[in-house]
Amino acid sequence: MRAAIIAVGSEMLTPSRVDTNSLFLTEKLNLLGVELSQKMVVGDHREELVASIRYCLDHVQLLLITGGLGPTEDDLTREAVGLATGREVRFDDQVCAALEARFASMGRKMAEINKRQAYVLEGAEVLPNPRGTAPGQWLELEGGKIIVVLPGPPGEMKPMAEAEFFPRLEKILPPLALSTVTLRLTGMGESDLDALIAPIYKQYENPVTTILAKTGDLTVHLRAQTTSQTEADRLTSELSAKIEALLGIRIYSRDGSPLESAVLRLLESKGQTVAVAESLTAGLVGSRFGSVPGASRCFVGGFITYNAQQKSSLLGVDTDVLAQHGEVSEPVALQMASGACSRSGSDWALSFTGFAGPDGGTEENPVGTVFIGVAGPNQFLKAHRFRYPAGDRDRVRAFAVQSGLNLLRLALHEPKEVNNA
Amino acid sequence: MRAAIIAVGSEMLTPSRVDTNSLFLTEKLNLLGVELSQKMVVGDHREELVASIRYCLDHVQLLLITGGLGPTEDDLTREAVGLATGREVRFDDQVCAALEARFASMGRKMAEINKRQAYVLEGAEVLPNPRGTAPGQWLELEGGKIIVVLPGPPGEMKPMAEAEFFPRLEKILPPLALSTVTLRLTGMGESDLDALIAPIYKQYENPVTTILAKTGDLTVHLRAQTTSQTEADRLTSELSAKIEALLGIRIYSRDGSPLESAVLRLLESKGQTVAVAESLTAGLVGSRFGSVPGASRCFVGGFITYNAQQKSSLLGVDTDVLAQHGEVSEPVALQMASGACSRSGSDWALSFTGFAGPDGGTEENPVGTVFIGVAGPNQFLKAHRFRYPAGDRDRVRAFAVQSGLNLLRLALHEPKEVNNA
Repeated sequence: MRAAIIAVGSEMLTPSRVDTNSLFLTEKLNLLGVELSQKMVVGDHREELVASIRYCLDHVQLLLITGGLGPTEDDLTREAVGLATGREVRFDDQVCAALEARFASMGRKMAEINKRQAYVLEGAEVLPNPRGTAPGQWLELEGGKIIVVLPGPPGEMKPMAEAEFFPRLEKILPPLALSTVTLRLTGMGESDLDALIAPIYKQYENPVTTILAKTGDLTVHLRAQTTSQTEADRLTSELSAKIEALLGIRIYSRDGSPLESAVLRLLESKGQTVAVAESLTAGLVGSRFGSVPGASRCFVGGFITYNAQQKSSLLGVDTDVLAQHGEVSEPVALQMASGACSRSGSDWALSFTGFAGPDGGTEENPVGTVFIGVAGPNQFLKAHRFRYPAGDRDRVRAFAVQSGLNLLRLALHEPKEVNNA
Repeated sequence: MRAAIIAVGSEMLTPSRVDTNSLFLTEKLNLLGVELSQKMVVGDHREELVASIRYCLDHVQLLLITGGLGPTEDDLTREAVGLATGREVRFDDQVCAALEARFASMGRKMAEINKRQAYVLEGAEVLPNPRGTAPGQWLELEGGKIIVVLPGPPGEMKPMAEAEFFPRLEKILPPLALSTVTLRLTGMGESDLDALIAPIYKQYENPVTTILAKTGDLTVHLRAQTTSQTEADRLTSELSAKIEALLGIRIYSRDGSPLESAVLRLLESKGQTVAVAESLTAGLVGSRFGSVPGASRCFVGGFITYNAQQKSSLLGVDTDVLAQHGEVSEPVALQMASGACSRSGSDWALSFTGFAGPDGGTEENPVGTVFIGVAGPNQFLKAHRFRYPAGDRDRVRAFAVQSGLNLLRLALHEPKEVNNA
């Protein structure tokens, strides 16, 4: 089966916005053996939208349309699909009642304009939207072609696609045995990773291997497709074992979960807790921990110390040390980490101090320099100096977060070895 | 003039790659008054490429095609444009000689396969490529429509577009003046915003008004195009003034800068400082402040108190109050804010405590409930209860950040009024 995706919205024809919904959808489609033939971005323009829908229907069996389902006059997707397919668009009392109930549950009255979202294409199944007002629609045409309409905001589109669209699609596709393995790792660059594992994965056409990289975080994705599940699983296991042997401790997760979850899992297995002491990252590390449901079992909180005075008053960093070495220095990172432990009562602490730029920095420690401290049980106390490429403040901070979480993971993973190192 | 862009390459139909060439091209096209009608990504597939070119030529006057100009059999753009327009593709001795000279200058002999890049569409102008082997092409069709073919690698496409394509395009376009205004605001929903200002902006076809929304953050973009700069500026000023009058204090920036910058600017104008006390947001608010260069002039840092014990030990929240009202309550939010002020020595503090989900919540305060406290000079102390849609932990946290920053902005903006409210 071949598919096309139309992303609807004039804002995605501006220089500052890209459609990313199609990437999410493509990944899942590929997993079901559906290949993308083309994708389009079309503005909020009735005739152009109708023409693009007709064009895609001429070329593929499955057409996905995201966006253009809002309540305003600019939201033309429902109407355009109706015009392109010759189907009527009808007001649906049930959908309208569900919309009104949603507004009521938030203590608000539904605006008249939202009634536009209660129109459904003749013959379409309504796909409920628990995260927003616009329901999706699944429409099978004469001849077996399918049009699926999904909301534009990713926070609404993704859950709806997972819960409503892909299960329906799976039912009508020929069975295909699929096996995937996702390895996540950090602590090396993308090209180094590829140079290391390419000689292995290039020997396999099936599984297909994909490497994704994002500010110090790497994902290796293996995907095998055959007609037998046993064979598909055997293929991914075989290749994965060879790759894992090369990467070893650098791999932090085998189930797609992020680095902060791996750290919290390790802490939980030891019944230990962690606190943060953040300067340049200013809460980024804490917020990563806080993004994991149930984090409070191991994450106690911590300190954002954005100037020298806070470092000394909140964390007990020596004013002499601050004066002598400066805020961005190894001794300050060490004292921040041990202060965070003792003042929060946590078993572990991670501290961050550095120059994110554009200003600041010294000859010895230019912009991009970050010191990360780790304090832990049995007087464990270490600091590491990192030097990231200067020029992008957010990138320096993101790299520091990644490095710090990984240092703590390694310290937790092999405490004896690390302690004796 | 309306334009379309086709990005050619099967790799851009995978889950991990996006076409970014079109963003660069769109920005420059917009500056010349050319609007994008649609854009497409098409794989390396002859028939689909021909069909997409024909489809676009039916709808626009200018079609840009990037990619598919390499030397391999997968590179089909030249051939597909020929098939779609009925033009022959001819071997060009001059282009071939230039290619051979390029290889020779690098001390290499040109491979036979590169001769494929010396084919030129009948009637096309060749656009030289100083950065690579594939020349571009500019082809005017009967009836005045234009097809421009550019290489796919951005490092070759951009210089060629700057040096060869845009100057040619400018010559055939009427001269044009452009004026833009960007208003950013928060504190209302997208549909409420549209309902409020649509009656105004719909009276204007020029400027064009676009609304963008992202978790509680709204941008209104006005863009006017005429032949005179004075007139373009007058048009945006006139419409902007009307919209600003309706939105008033909700507007936090007129230069595109984010909410946290607006808050820091207000603090700086008063010579005051702020600290944070974060529970469910766990550092998100601090990290927003920390993302602004020079934030340390007004942002001192703060506390991440992810459990009851930290709230009491780091911020001095009463254990009785915690026991009686629970961690997620108005009295706790108030004590967190005042504790953050007194313990960090800041003038202002923002506190956050709530249920992000998926677990937690009470009958009175279900998942999605967040209390935000604001403490400030002259015993200013208030807490606000918010109820966000449950179901997406990250969304609840993101909305809370936005609400909190806006509460502080409003308190800073009209301190007297707010104090007396």
